[in-house]
Amino acid sequence: MKSTIKPAEGKLGILLPGLGAVATTLIAGVEAVKKGISQPIGSLTQMGTIRLGKRTENRRPKVKDFVPLADLNDIVWGGWDVYEDNVYESAMNAKVLEPGLLYSVKEELEAIKPMKAAFDQNYAKNLTATNVKTGTRYELAQQVMEDIQNFKENNGLDRVVLVWCGSTEIYYEASDVHSSLEKFEQGLINDDKLIAPSMIYAYAALKLGVPFANGAPNLTVDIPALIELARITETPIAGKDFKTGQTLMKTILAPGLAARSLGVNGWFSTNILGNRDGLVLDDPDNFKTKEVSKLGVLEDIFKPEDNPELYGDIFHKIRINYYPPHGDNKESWDNIDIFGWLGYKMQIKINFLCRDSILAAPIALDLALFSDFAKRAGMSGVQEWLSFYLKSPQTAPGLPAENDIFKQLIKLENTLRYLMGEDLITHLGLDYYEELVEVK
Amino acid sequence: MKSTIKPAEGKLGILLPGLGAVATTLIAGVEAVKKGISQPIGSLTQMGTIRLGKRTENRRPKVKDFVPLADLNDIVWGGWDVYEDNVYESAMNAKVLEPGLLYSVKEELEAIKPMKAAFDQNYAKNLTATNVKTGTRYELAQQVMEDIQNFKENNGLDRVVLVWCGSTEIYYEASDVHSSLEKFEQGLINDDKLIAPSMIYAYAALKLGVPFANGAPNLTVDIPALIELARITETPIAGKDFKTGQTLMKTILAPGLAARSLGVNGWFSTNILGNRDGLVLDDPDNFKTKEVSKLGVLEDIFKPEDNPELYGDIFHKIRINYYPPHGDNKESWDNIDIFGWLGYKMQIKINFLCRDSILAAPIALDLALFSDFAKRAGMSGVQEWLSFYLKSPQTAPGLPAENDIFKQLIKLENTLRYLMGEDLITHLGLDYYEELVEVK
Amino acid sequence: MKSTIKPAEGKLGILLPGLGAVATTLIAGVEAVKKGISQPIGSLTQMGTIRLGKRTENRRPKVKDFVPLADLNDIVWGGWDVYEDNVYESAMNAKVLEPGLLYSVKEELEAIKPMKAAFDQNYAKNLTATNVKTGTRYELAQQVMEDIQNFKENNGLDRVVLVWCGSTEIYYEASDVHSSLEKFEQGLINDDKLIAPSMIYAYAALKLGVPFANGAPNLTVDIPALIELARITETPIAGKDFKTGQTLMKTILAPGLAARSLGVNGWFSTNILGNRDGLVLDDPDNFKTKEVSKLGVLEDIFKPEDNPELYGDIFHKIRINYYPPHGDNKESWDNIDIFGWLGYKMQIKINFLCRDSILAAPIALDLALFSDFAKRAGMSGVQEWLSFYLKSPQTAPGLPAENDIFKQLIKLENTLRYLMGEDLITHLGLDYYEELVEVK
Amino acid sequence: MKSTIKPAEGKLGILLPGLGAVATTLIAGVEAVKKGISQPIGSLTQMGTIRLGKRTENRRPKVKDFVPLADLNDIVWGGWDVYEDNVYESAMNAKVLEPGLLYSVKEELEAIKPMKAAFDQNYAKNLTATNVKTGTRYELAQQVMEDIQNFKENNGLDRVVLVWCGSTEIYYEASDVHSSLEKFEQGLINDDKLIAPSMIYAYAALKLGVPFANGAPNLTVDIPALIELARITETPIAGKDFKTGQTLMKTILAPGLAARSLGVNGWFSTNILGNRDGLVLDDPDNFKTKEVSKLGVLEDIFKPEDNPELYGDIFHKIRINYYPPHGDNKESWDNIDIFGWLGYKMQIKINFLCRDSILAAPIALDLALFSDFAKRAGMSGVQEWLSFYLKSPQTAPGLPAENDIFKQLIKLENTLRYLMGEDLITHLGLDYYEELVEVK
Repeated sequence: MKSTIKPAEGKLGILLPGLGAVATTLIAGVEAVKKGISQPIGSLTQMGTIRLGKRTENRRPKVKDFVPLADLNDIVWGGWDVYEDNVYESAMNAKVLEPGLLYSVKEELEAIKPMKAAFDQNYAKNLTATNVKTGTRYELAQQVMEDIQNFKENNGLDRVVLVWCGSTEIYYEASDVHSSLEKFEQGLINDDKLIAPSMIYAYAALKLGVPFANGAPNLTVDIPALIELARITETPIAGKDFKTGQTLMKTILAPGLAARSLGVNGWFSTNILGNRDGLVLDDPDNFKTKEVSKLGVLEDIFKPEDNPELYGDIFHKIRINYYPPHGDNKESWDNIDIFGWLGYKMQIKINFLCRDSILAAPIALDLALFSDFAKRAGMSGVQEWLSFYLKSPQTAPGLPAENDIFKQLIKLENTLRYLMGEDLITHLGLDYYEELVEVK
Repeated sequence: MKSTIKPAEGKLGILLPGLGAVATTLIAGVEAVKKGISQPIGSLTQMGTIRLGKRTENRRPKVKDFVPLADLNDIVWGGWDVYEDNVYESAMNAKVLEPGLLYSVKEELEAIKPMKAAFDQNYAKNLTATNVKTGTRYELAQQVMEDIQNFKENNGLDRVVLVWCGSTEIYYEASDVHSSLEKFEQGLINDDKLIAPSMIYAYAALKLGVPFANGAPNLTVDIPALIELARITETPIAGKDFKTGQTLMKTILAPGLAARSLGVNGWFSTNILGNRDGLVLDDPDNFKTKEVSKLGVLEDIFKPEDNPELYGDIFHKIRINYYPPHGDNKESWDNIDIFGWLGYKMQIKINFLCRDSILAAPIALDLALFSDFAKRAGMSGVQEWLSFYLKSPQTAPGLPAENDIFKQLIKLENTLRYLMGEDLITHLGLDYYEELVEVK
Repeated sequence: MKSTIKPAEGKLGILLPGLGAVATTLIAGVEAVKKGISQPIGSLTQMGTIRLGKRTENRRPKVKDFVPLADLNDIVWGGWDVYEDNVYESAMNAKVLEPGLLYSVKEELEAIKPMKAAFDQNYAKNLTATNVKTGTRYELAQQVMEDIQNFKENNGLDRVVLVWCGSTEIYYEASDVHSSLEKFEQGLINDDKLIAPSMIYAYAALKLGVPFANGAPNLTVDIPALIELARITETPIAGKDFKTGQTLMKTILAPGLAARSLGVNGWFSTNILGNRDGLVLDDPDNFKTKEVSKLGVLEDIFKPEDNPELYGDIFHKIRINYYPPHGDNKESWDNIDIFGWLGYKMQIKINFLCRDSILAAPIALDLALFSDFAKRAGMSGVQEWLSFYLKSPQTAPGLPAENDIFKQLIKLENTLRYLMGEDLITHLGLDYYEELVEVK
Repeated sequence: MKSTIKPAEGKLGILLPGLGAVATTLIAGVEAVKKGISQPIGSLTQMGTIRLGKRTENRRPKVKDFVPLADLNDIVWGGWDVYEDNVYESAMNAKVLEPGLLYSVKEELEAIKPMKAAFDQNYAKNLTATNVKTGTRYELAQQVMEDIQNFKENNGLDRVVLVWCGSTEIYYEASDVHSSLEKFEQGLINDDKLIAPSMIYAYAALKLGVPFANGAPNLTVDIPALIELARITETPIAGKDFKTGQTLMKTILAPGLAARSLGVNGWFSTNILGNRDGLVLDDPDNFKTKEVSKLGVLEDIFKPEDNPELYGDIFHKIRINYYPPHGDNKESWDNIDIFGWLGYKMQIKINFLCRDSILAAPIALDLALFSDFAKRAGMSGVQEWLSFYLKSPQTAPGLPAENDIFKQLIKLENTLRYLMGEDLITHLGLDYYEELVEVK
């Protein structure tokens, strides 16, 4: 398998629709890392290690030393946004990173100016866009494709990937226009309102064989039309919704409770955050998209249909509150009502003082690097092994998603081992004790 | 493999050294379950399911329907204690279960009277024992063996297992007398003070081929002498320290942080509890045993030697405070200082309002049932696949322990699948997407 | 002053509109106290002490031994409700008190059957009433007066008081029909929909000279028409909204922050509760009434107009979430963003695992006893000294409310001292040091 | 009274024994305030307002505009320390304030160099002093007096005050040498080890008529000998232990529970902090001094002897844990077990993410300014009205302390009103309702 993976030669362009808090934190961070000022903490590709072989072999290389990923020094940034601010200005506004740090990469950030966005006010009412393209959806798609190609040529790039870092769009479900590539392309021509702006970017990317990952909870690439296109152009796709903060904690903790067969009858989750994301989510239509994405994880992990006595009656409530005093310093509070032996009740309270964009940025980076790797490894279509990074993972049609972050991690790691020709790890490990057995 | 496992026919005796809060909660609970009054929540063997085959096969039997375990109705209880109270009286004193529930199984509990304990005041200073055997350590071991055999004969049992549910002994390390079976047996004859009371029970059990699991953090069966004996008599052993409460949470959460390459620079854990366990742990010598058991888990999970930038400098502090107002309702509070992208700091606070014995009882049950199963499956010596239940897992000499509860779970599940002739699960799952690949 | 207070002779009837969780917890509790089974914890009149004279005099009688209050043994209960359940049945449904306790006062509780309620579905959409009076508002008022008089005669009572323990009504403001007694009485005759059901009870009580206290946030007796009536019939009134749970904590903590001139720029308060009150408040119209009552307290305590640098920009958000798993065990979580010296930021998190009706019942008792006492002491109209018990205290027109619970307490205590002819306490206490001064 | 207060003319010297985190935060802060860079948040004298007259008069001047206090611009700083670092260096080491802020007052801070300290290693084992005076205790006292006089003359000061900002000394109780001024002065000559270093400073100050306030829990000025001296030289004294963090919260919350007659049966308090104070308190002897200071507050507020049913059996435990990851960002966690109506249990959890020196600095400032004011107002000896700022208030011999922060506040405010010739406030306020009464 290993021999078929193309090397990561040349430059990789990472294009980000949405140059807000997450995107600018990502770009500024990688530039600071390149200069040796900072470390890419939170990025599995850069900081993580992977066990190979037996426990006793002590082989634990860094992921980036094991798998041929693009080097950070080979990355070139670009993107689109509804505001004209360059990345330095946008990062200053976002107030995620300290001015001193941003100042040290000011030149690099100022050079990155957003291309005009493909936007539709109906999909994000609380935003007032000023830097937008005009035309029908078909025309917008053409313009985005031109943007991508120009970006590639102007920068002498070998490869490009797109990662959606824009706001959450209002809630919508897949409809007829999304059901096949043919209908979708007709819809573009008809300027069909049911085609969301994020789909235009995804279409443009896939058409050009450029991998696309979706960091927001909107459907975007999770529709039959674009899955079909991804297969045709042999392009990897992944979505949806960066798994950060409260949902990250939930998919860590819930598998632990399930592992121990501890019952759950209530899970109350509330969040306070004060960034632009919080403002957008203050609109009920946009919140619904996020809520659907966040609500699903427990059901998959607890499987109430298989364990009705334990998980058949969970009251699960999620609230997001716009709370300006905290800015990007998102904070979550969870109350979990569990029951154990003979039904006796216990409670877990989790208070996570996190930082929204700090958690999201390394995920966006990893998705970009792994999507590019997948393309070079000849993988195409839905990349379920990247569900590790996603709140609401896209899977093969009909296949239930796996939200347990530890199963997602094994899937990711065993995929890498498989592609690189290493043994899969099952943690059986009875052989460590064989010698003992033989003694008798 | 499957065909070689002996069936679970006849009665299984479960003998518990230490008939305090955990043991009486276990016994009362199983008796209530037998009567249909309650459910054995928290027990993986009774309530848990296990996935078999592909995700799409939807095969998820209960563990007890997949593996031939002893039926709860075939269990007969017995035990030793330093107090004369029968199990009903002891359960009433423990104040874990409500009087109404205990009343419903009063008859069964009153019938279980503790045998005299093999005890040494030096190993638990805060206890004042009144129901103890006399004699040298050698004589005590003989008496315990007689107890076991009488118990088996008098109750017409097919098989017996022992699970240590006694208090935490003071801190001690393995010394010369523990280094080989020969020296150990000589030590018994010499009444060597370095042989802890719990070792006497373990020796007696193993000598008779009776599996032994250790729910406290003292070494007990985790010494070369008794590992040797276990191999000779082909008996499974497992230890040490039931993984409940704060450490359970820690081994759930820490793997999640490590999975995401999030750095950790401080972890402060404090506990308040007011039961007899809390009283014993108020003695610094006994606390040290517990502290050592609890401290180790982070190091294994984070592997600071492999990830010095992330985990090379963790300040880890654990406190246990005797706090009578809470009784058995142990409560933990954790503050975890983490850092993410570019070193930005975040905090996690976890407040777990748990119940000590409610969490421990189902673990004791599972260890008893799985130990018995392992014996019938021809497994002997250290059962690392049971580390899922243990704070400080015993492993093969020289083999680093695995404390990540999710790796422990996979190990347990894949062991069961292996023994029962099912495919191991690797979560690779690329085949779900093969069909799609072929389409193109 | 003392000589003019009429003694508490004979029986006192306490009539409660709304025989739900709070009322039944109150009644069952007092009956249990009468039998010596329980203690009236949380009741200042029964358990509290009051300092008299100098600190060095050590005079600290119980309030009930200092002030001539009705004895608990002289209380006779009655009430109205929209359901037919007697108080025993209603208490069992409320699931606040344990069945064992309720059983011990079953006979007394079963004897108390609700009179038919004056109800209007528009004021509480989530309730489905089955035990209601019919007629115009005027007729309903007449019927309630008859109920009160019959209750007094049938039980041989000396005095009666009413305490509103019903649900929160939808939000409404005072309008023309509430502006004078004349218009109000005409409104009754016209069956004016703007007259809320709770006002009908208040009118009936005041017309008969029966004190009325309001435990819900609806205006009820806080309108000019009824204040006028209270003055005419020389009757004490008090309102509104029992101060329990989160607001209790808020009016304890906020004065502490203000005392120290610590700045506040955010206060996020969320609640989860699962009782009938939670269900009613799930309707936005009813929640608004509660929200207005809860929001006001910070403004009064922090006085942003006087301290704009410290409190001029507080983001204050309150959420109440219906969460059935917790039943009456209301739980609140507060995040308070404060700033100190040079503007440095700090945070306070408060998690209150409280019990709604357990906190409210003793307040209802105290308001009943003190209202009766006030009547006997010749006080009439708004009793601001009872604001200690109320979330949104009623004051003289134009007089700003005092929400600081400690100022409210001093007001209450100094009022009692004043009425009983004791010196007021100012905590000046320089005289303790005079002797020392003289020494020199 | 007002006419007898001397005006705050000329310069005020503030001398601080101990130029560590608190002192440098204080000095840097005041200098930043003078430059208009920052605000003295948390200082009642600078930011607080005081109500005068009736509620309806709306008279709420700032305290500093009501009482003749020294102006911040008239303050001159000095101090002693066991290290040679100047205030800028020490502030940088303390890591409380951000480098940017410190840089803006660097010149002023660098100019303040510590005088050599009167030190005795036995009183703070974890410190390694390098900048110390030599000589007997008598000689040290003479040297400190010279320091004070030189400081006054060299800077052309009108008045001087001392505020102890040094570390907590080991636990000691008053003994014979502290029992009278005569014995104390003999003890100085004998170099009696029972005279703590802090007492040497206090003696020197009082001998010169310089007010002394004590911010640590050691006895210091709370001994008969120095009280006697304070009376002779007509000098105000105040102690002990700045009331910050957890104890501040405790004396805010406990009065609230007591006000409502809610019972308490357990209060567990734990702290994590990583500054030099935390290091000193890691020594059990020093911790004991702090523990005694912190433990006392509940007893005074709850008065178990008067309320045995509510407060007769409180399990109160306090822990301080040295936890370097948090530095000066002290964090406390409290679990409070309360019970209400009929004994039903509830819990309160408080998590305070505070900053030790940020809370202490404004207290030190207020104590300095008020001590100077008291001196000018002719007050001498123990200033109980300053107990508002202190964890373990010093009172007249035999007079029980008042720890309720709200009673302390009234005492402070009414003292100011009294001294300035304003009416005391009793919160009776019945007169607001007199007009209404007359209407009838």
